[in-house]
Amino acid sequence: MTTDLVHRVLRTRRATERLAAPLGPEDCAAQSMPDASPVKWHLAHTTWFFERFVLCPLGVPPLHESYDFLFNSYYDAVGARQPRAERGLLTRPALADVMAYRRAVSARIADLERSSRLPEVAEALELGMHHEEQHQELILTDVKHLFGKSPELPAYRSEAAERPRSPAVRPIAYRSFSGGLTEIGAEPAGFAFDAERPRHAVHVAPFALADRLVTCGEYLAFLLDAGYARPELWLSEGFAWVLRERVRAPLHWLVEAQAPPTPETLRVFTLHGPRAFDPGEPVCHLTYYEADAYARWAGARLPTEAEWEVAVTEASAAGVAVGGALLEDDTLHPTAARPTERGGLAQAVGDAWEWTSSAFAPYPGFRPLAGAFGEYNGKFMVSQLVLRGGSSLTPREHARVTVRNFFPPTAAWQVSSVRLARGA
Amino acid sequence: MTTDLVHRVLRTRRATERLAAPLGPEDCAAQSMPDASPVKWHLAHTTWFFERFVLCPLGVPPLHESYDFLFNSYYDAVGARQPRAERGLLTRPALADVMAYRRAVSARIADLERSSRLPEVAEALELGMHHEEQHQELILTDVKHLFGKSPELPAYRSEAAERPRSPAVRPIAYRSFSGGLTEIGAEPAGFAFDAERPRHAVHVAPFALADRLVTCGEYLAFLLDAGYARPELWLSEGFAWVLRERVRAPLHWLVEAQAPPTPETLRVFTLHGPRAFDPGEPVCHLTYYEADAYARWAGARLPTEAEWEVAVTEASAAGVAVGGALLEDDTLHPTAARPTERGGLAQAVGDAWEWTSSAFAPYPGFRPLAGAFGEYNGKFMVSQLVLRGGSSLTPREHARVTVRNFFPPTAAWQVSSVRLARGA
Amino acid sequence: MTTDLVHRVLRTRRATERLAAPLGPEDCAAQSMPDASPVKWHLAHTTWFFERFVLCPLGVPPLHESYDFLFNSYYDAVGARQPRAERGLLTRPALADVMAYRRAVSARIADLERSSRLPEVAEALELGMHHEEQHQELILTDVKHLFGKSPELPAYRSEAAERPRSPAVRPIAYRSFSGGLTEIGAEPAGFAFDAERPRHAVHVAPFALADRLVTCGEYLAFLLDAGYARPELWLSEGFAWVLRERVRAPLHWLVEAQAPPTPETLRVFTLHGPRAFDPGEPVCHLTYYEADAYARWAGARLPTEAEWEVAVTEASAAGVAVGGALLEDDTLHPTAARPTERGGLAQAVGDAWEWTSSAFAPYPGFRPLAGAFGEYNGKFMVSQLVLRGGSSLTPREHARVTVRNFFPPTAAWQVSSVRLARGA
Amino acid sequence: MTTDLVHRVLRTRRATERLAAPLGPEDCAAQSMPDASPVKWHLAHTTWFFERFVLCPLGVPPLHESYDFLFNSYYDAVGARQPRAERGLLTRPALADVMAYRRAVSARIADLERSSRLPEVAEALELGMHHEEQHQELILTDVKHLFGKSPELPAYRSEAAERPRSPAVRPIAYRSFSGGLTEIGAEPAGFAFDAERPRHAVHVAPFALADRLVTCGEYLAFLLDAGYARPELWLSEGFAWVLRERVRAPLHWLVEAQAPPTPETLRVFTLHGPRAFDPGEPVCHLTYYEADAYARWAGARLPTEAEWEVAVTEASAAGVAVGGALLEDDTLHPTAARPTERGGLAQAVGDAWEWTSSAFAPYPGFRPLAGAFGEYNGKFMVSQLVLRGGSSLTPREHARVTVRNFFPPTAAWQVSSVRLARGA
Repeated sequence: MTTDLVHRVLRTRRATERLAAPLGPEDCAAQSMPDASPVKWHLAHTTWFFERFVLCPLGVPPLHESYDFLFNSYYDAVGARQPRAERGLLTRPALADVMAYRRAVSARIADLERSSRLPEVAEALELGMHHEEQHQELILTDVKHLFGKSPELPAYRSEAAERPRSPAVRPIAYRSFSGGLTEIGAEPAGFAFDAERPRHAVHVAPFALADRLVTCGEYLAFLLDAGYARPELWLSEGFAWVLRERVRAPLHWLVEAQAPPTPETLRVFTLHGPRAFDPGEPVCHLTYYEADAYARWAGARLPTEAEWEVAVTEASAAGVAVGGALLEDDTLHPTAARPTERGGLAQAVGDAWEWTSSAFAPYPGFRPLAGAFGEYNGKFMVSQLVLRGGSSLTPREHARVTVRNFFPPTAAWQVSSVRLARGA
Repeated sequence: MTTDLVHRVLRTRRATERLAAPLGPEDCAAQSMPDASPVKWHLAHTTWFFERFVLCPLGVPPLHESYDFLFNSYYDAVGARQPRAERGLLTRPALADVMAYRRAVSARIADLERSSRLPEVAEALELGMHHEEQHQELILTDVKHLFGKSPELPAYRSEAAERPRSPAVRPIAYRSFSGGLTEIGAEPAGFAFDAERPRHAVHVAPFALADRLVTCGEYLAFLLDAGYARPELWLSEGFAWVLRERVRAPLHWLVEAQAPPTPETLRVFTLHGPRAFDPGEPVCHLTYYEADAYARWAGARLPTEAEWEVAVTEASAAGVAVGGALLEDDTLHPTAARPTERGGLAQAVGDAWEWTSSAFAPYPGFRPLAGAFGEYNGKFMVSQLVLRGGSSLTPREHARVTVRNFFPPTAAWQVSSVRLARGA
Repeated sequence: MTTDLVHRVLRTRRATERLAAPLGPEDCAAQSMPDASPVKWHLAHTTWFFERFVLCPLGVPPLHESYDFLFNSYYDAVGARQPRAERGLLTRPALADVMAYRRAVSARIADLERSSRLPEVAEALELGMHHEEQHQELILTDVKHLFGKSPELPAYRSEAAERPRSPAVRPIAYRSFSGGLTEIGAEPAGFAFDAERPRHAVHVAPFALADRLVTCGEYLAFLLDAGYARPELWLSEGFAWVLRERVRAPLHWLVEAQAPPTPETLRVFTLHGPRAFDPGEPVCHLTYYEADAYARWAGARLPTEAEWEVAVTEASAAGVAVGGALLEDDTLHPTAARPTERGGLAQAVGDAWEWTSSAFAPYPGFRPLAGAFGEYNGKFMVSQLVLRGGSSLTPREHARVTVRNFFPPTAAWQVSSVRLARGA
Repeated sequence: MTTDLVHRVLRTRRATERLAAPLGPEDCAAQSMPDASPVKWHLAHTTWFFERFVLCPLGVPPLHESYDFLFNSYYDAVGARQPRAERGLLTRPALADVMAYRRAVSARIADLERSSRLPEVAEALELGMHHEEQHQELILTDVKHLFGKSPELPAYRSEAAERPRSPAVRPIAYRSFSGGLTEIGAEPAGFAFDAERPRHAVHVAPFALADRLVTCGEYLAFLLDAGYARPELWLSEGFAWVLRERVRAPLHWLVEAQAPPTPETLRVFTLHGPRAFDPGEPVCHLTYYEADAYARWAGARLPTEAEWEVAVTEASAAGVAVGGALLEDDTLHPTAARPTERGGLAQAVGDAWEWTSSAFAPYPGFRPLAGAFGEYNGKFMVSQLVLRGGSSLTPREHARVTVRNFFPPTAAWQVSSVRLARGA
């Protein structure tokens, strides 16, 4: 199993490199905003992570002294680092040098297969793999943000820019759950990020959850109902954000400056470039504020993370469909919801991250990992909201029902959507 | 009871006016930061609240047309308003005019006692009274912030500037609570703010709570242990705040520019003016970041709001002491903790607001009030943390065990402190 | 003459107090922006100036130790001071205390009349008087800015809010000047600010100057010709300012949010409160950017300060009219231009400050005053433009032809206007 | 001569490409601050300039429609454009595509040699060549700024990183000039930028000018004399800049965080990478504020641009030395001053731009060029100061005595230095 681990790590690293293949050196070097990182930085940082936390403890000297400074993300225990907002100024090392660095470190990881000391670092190796998978998703969302700010609106993948429109969707149906005293969180065995544990008791009041995500067409109706101009629909902080940033539509909707959008004139920027508006597709790239305002407009609310986890677990256990894009062929889009059976929850896994109303906080009994890994999640537990379910850009292994993604309420560059909830 | 209500309202309003009595027109007009308001604005806004939500529905025409614009705080349902950060520019109406406005509205409220329509507005009248009490506390914290920014460091009340030092405190003891499935929140009967309801089931894991607040002396030890210079003690966002604002000590600690503070050289700004540092007094004016960092340094954590409510309710019910400044004579300071009996929790009510690790969110089944009152709390349910317990500046009626105060993690101008918690 | 000086100083100080008379304590305490100061601060600062630079050198101890900190404007040689943007937080000393301070210092100045040491401080006394006159003008412009930001739009003086419209103005005529080698600057004798000296040779090419200021009606034509939307009319930095601040009209024009302004709907805020738009009145409260853009639109340019001084001097010497509001009765408005004789320049003195294209820089051979007075003007000689002529709010003694006022290009809260110039 | 023009243009363009040769695609794509541009952008923009203003008027269709948006710098007459601060996000077109664009446009320029219509565009062609030379200098200063922000501190050219220290310099001697009525500005014939004309009369009072630039060693003495901590040495705006930006030394001086710098510990970042401190070398990368403060500390002042031009013209005409780096072999550094003959002015041309105290303003009779070229200089004539003399990075043809460079007082990333002046 630990031998297999090395293979899985190397496979993951090759997958990362395939993600970067369509990009040139400049595409990989630019940083479109402080929250996003250059692809080159992701490629190097994920490699540095293995070097620093797997190879270094085994006494393997680092390949480049300066990389501790350049490619440390936020580990204060490791030391000073390049300011986050200035990662785009790192023209050196060049992309070719970073790829050589990746190969050298991957070779050293491969050597571990024959090392008697592999067990010592197996846990760090596994974490490094999952860490790299997290960055695979960020590579795609960061590139999408970068290309979305380019006047050229280039396509990351050019094939299939126009795909058939989604079929007409059925109105949302609400699935009821009885709640009660139950448990959420990851079981002790198997891999999970620290914040998913410990599994613990929660009490959940009866509730109902929409059987699919909100569509672009539904969200457009909110927009055309003066959604962005009615303060009563918004959290106070959210409406201040709308005014301050002059928001008129979700990120990546290509709205003409003057006229209100229509399904015919609207185009949406995707990793395949600009595409025609598809009313049946799940709306995505919403901030928390937008997801929350939409829910209020629709007479509903956002689910808590406990509700979400309870519902999806229960539905799966009952043998009813918990659909998702991960079951599809390789895709960069959330898929339209196919009709679900009674009790099913479509688009629950691997279509789009779903905002919950739960702040990211430690589970009761939470213990951060030892050493520098203690900084992995714990130090971000304020001012962020939990998202659940994974998106069409999430590596398949990551779309576990217990995974807790988290972002501040202003974040929109992830594939973030909304599923409505209600009291029972 | 509704007749009594009118008397209680008028008594509350007179209490507000007593708070403003030591202040001159200029003291009442200045605004020290966007989050704070001028005292004159508080005096007028609380009056406008009664006029707008009690008298207006009864057909009483407003005294001043323009006050809807000037003294509306954040009710979008009522219309446009003076920008919050520019309340300090309202030199007109003058303080004397605002006091006349208060008298005129109070007279109209007094008339309600003989009105057959009193029952129609009893609920709004009661809310208006509690609303005014909330602003009583803000008057004191806003004046303290204003005077603390003045080079003159004036005293709000000059008597008793130097009071005897607190007696030596005993080390913190932890009281254990078994938790389990229980309920929190306000009962359906009696007054409570909307966010305190509905009372609902929660599951709480076993935990322990410190029997008193952290003292100034203990916090100084954290500070002198390089507390503000060690990122591993802080939330990531908190340490960024320390660096950005160059924070070296809590708000209102008067630290010399160059030398590290000592109990002898430190002075603390209070509503009685600057005073000698008192090691036994509860530390206050902490941001959430500071409270959280202190707890980590002390090997503990912050309690959740459910833990806090369960513990204080349980201790009270068991007949053991739940001490607090509200039992004291009229005071502007938190009191030092007197020895508590086994199981007791000192300083739990009416000494200092205690930061919890719980984000301010709706209770399951939360329903905002109808109409404009729906904006009272609900629209602030993001990016804020709950504080519990009330402070020495909180009106006595407000220090209910179910009250949920809330502020963003950067707020320090309230009397906010920290009580440590641990897993069982 | 030095005896007379004391009388003139005291008369000036009484005039200052008359300016504050219509204002309440709150009006005098508020600060509407960092560039403006509270009236109370002006009242105290001008007094402190006499105490610090006249009485102190004579050994008179200061009345209040703390006033060196509170009421020092920018004299680094004197020491630390209240941050400029926080002058509005100085609720203490109260207005009454500041007035008492004024009286006490004025009494000490009066005592100087009988002092043998008067000659020692005569120069500082004279500077103090002119300094106080400068602040008289600032009191009026700062109050106007403060009241202009108030939703109440109160009048500083309520009488005569509506005065008759200006008579129709004749089209601008250009007066020609031959220029050549000449001199500008203040003569060595008599009072002048340091920056007005030394008188020195300049060479000026032939030029022509408009015989009056641009009117509100003319400026409205520019505005309605899309003046604020055409980058080719603006300095690059000026157009960036228009976009950043979303400027649509001059400061103090009360423009409805949606419709374009017309002479009928436009109102203008004045020290008498809002008034009907008067097309014949000089336009004022222009930034440098606006003055410059208007001139470009009109096919003209701004004059240099040398051109302005040469023209006004020459016209006066030739015995032709150099009109101005200072010849009028006490007024707070620029006056409409009366027909000028051939060669005359209307509105040249005491109507509105006229932007010149000259940066504020030292004259050749400029020597700052000795000691702290060296900071009076010299340290502001970058990033500011010279204005000439004095406004209707300028004390009469100050409207000397050599006086150089200066402000950054974004400043609009002074009574600043535009007179067009051309090459010959 | 117009035939020769085509050859000169093509030679200039090849020189630009040689400047980019040591740089990789990422080096060419990054933007280190809003004021600087990526090298790739310079390469494309200078090419677009020829296409838009030379080829387009001849009816040659543009190669890429989108380049009008991407590579327009600030010509409003041409239309909308990529925001300046986001030039670093233009990952497409790639560097290779931009180089192909350069080749295609250069080929079309070469074709003009045989075109009968060459005379029509000769003027624009000549301007395009000088424009490209201006960008050659910016390529070097922008790369220097970018590499100076990189933790790697890479060298643009690695050879000769350590060159011999400058020989000891003689104390500054002042050369006297009698001034009087004279002329400055470019003659009507020959190429000059619009702002250099018309040649016009000025009167200059007698003055004296230092015979060389201030050295690094002299500037270090100012720094060690608490130069950055004494407000009396600074313009008010300059000292505010020092405090706000926490400035402790000139840009590109590599100062250790804690200890004060010494000639032994100081290193200076150059285009050859970090080098030992050379006390005899001219100090450069000064802001206007620093140049002005140094001059005040040294008991001198900055020259006006008229003084500078008069002195250098007079000295040249008298046959005495007007030295400069341009006489040296190809160098990226200012050279140390060699002893000058009596009356000579060392380092006057092509060592470092010299800040003057003159604001950038139109000469009397200034006429902007026709059409879009009218935006070339005129719209920047506010808030900037003139620099004279050219630097070691300035193309030789550009170091004319009449050239007026201009930057805001905060700019330090150009090779900007200080030459002292005094009254006679």
